[in-house]
Amino acid sequence: MSVLTSEARSALTGGHLAHLTTLGRDGSPHVTIVWVGLDGDEIVSGHLGRYQKLRNIERNPRVALSMVTGGRNSFGLENYLVVYGNARITEGGAPELLQRLAHVYIGPDVPFPPMDSPPPGFVVRITPRRLGGIGPWG
Amino acid sequence: MSVLTSEARSALTGGHLAHLTTLGRDGSPHVTIVWVGLDGDEIVSGHLGRYQKLRNIERNPRVALSMVTGGRNSFGLENYLVVYGNARITEGGAPELLQRLAHVYIGPDVPFPPMDSPPPGFVVRITPRRLGGIGPWG
Repeated sequence: MSVLTSEARSALTGGHLAHLTTLGRDGSPHVTIVWVGLDGDEIVSGHLGRYQKLRNIERNPRVALSMVTGGRNSFGLENYLVVYGNARITEGGAPELLQRLAHVYIGPDVPFPPMDSPPPGFVVRITPRRLGGIGPWG
Repeated sequence: MSVLTSEARSALTGGHLAHLTTLGRDGSPHVTIVWVGLDGDEIVSGHLGRYQKLRNIERNPRVALSMVTGGRNSFGLENYLVVYGNARITEGGAPELLQRLAHVYIGPDVPFPPMDSPPPGFVVRITPRRLGGIGPWG
């Protein structure tokens, strides 16, 4: 059974920028910001190239993903969600996923990726293992 | 000489929430969101207790810090700054630093921490080693 609560699912499909941490060859953290959505119980992001974060995931699947989700707690601190999980990579499908997410993150009429024949790319799929942060999941 | 450019310094003092990644005992990433400021060439954050992230830093000083900084690039992707660095911890000074940062992050008249006699706590001090992200530093 997934650790994703309905509140976490709403946050993960709400168009909040996600900070994705992967681990480099020497164990150092590597961070990029990505668009995310859900595919069943997996958190998905699309990537046109085999970037550093994908090479990191191939070596070490442990990742963290964090996002500010709106609202504050009683001390005035902003709510945020952290997802700890294991990532895997599947080939192809990146342009279609990026187009779907661009409608959420940029606007309903935006074509994305901004090129005529994008490569099929890769989809990163994260299985959540544990939630953290401040909010209805903290 | 610090790797911090003037644009990075402006971002780091602009009241943007910072995602701080530290490394746990088993090497897994641990993420929390913190308020940050600058003290000379060090990025500083205040902590009232000896939380997990501080224990992580004591074992392994390698950290990453990321923040969305406003504006977008020509593809419509939002600018963000990532700082890779080494952290150290000094004792005391957390309430004063948190009060200074609350004025930036919450408002000019907000008393913080919200208690009468806060403990002296700890200050995390990050020496930046390398910058990443999208923006005038990427």
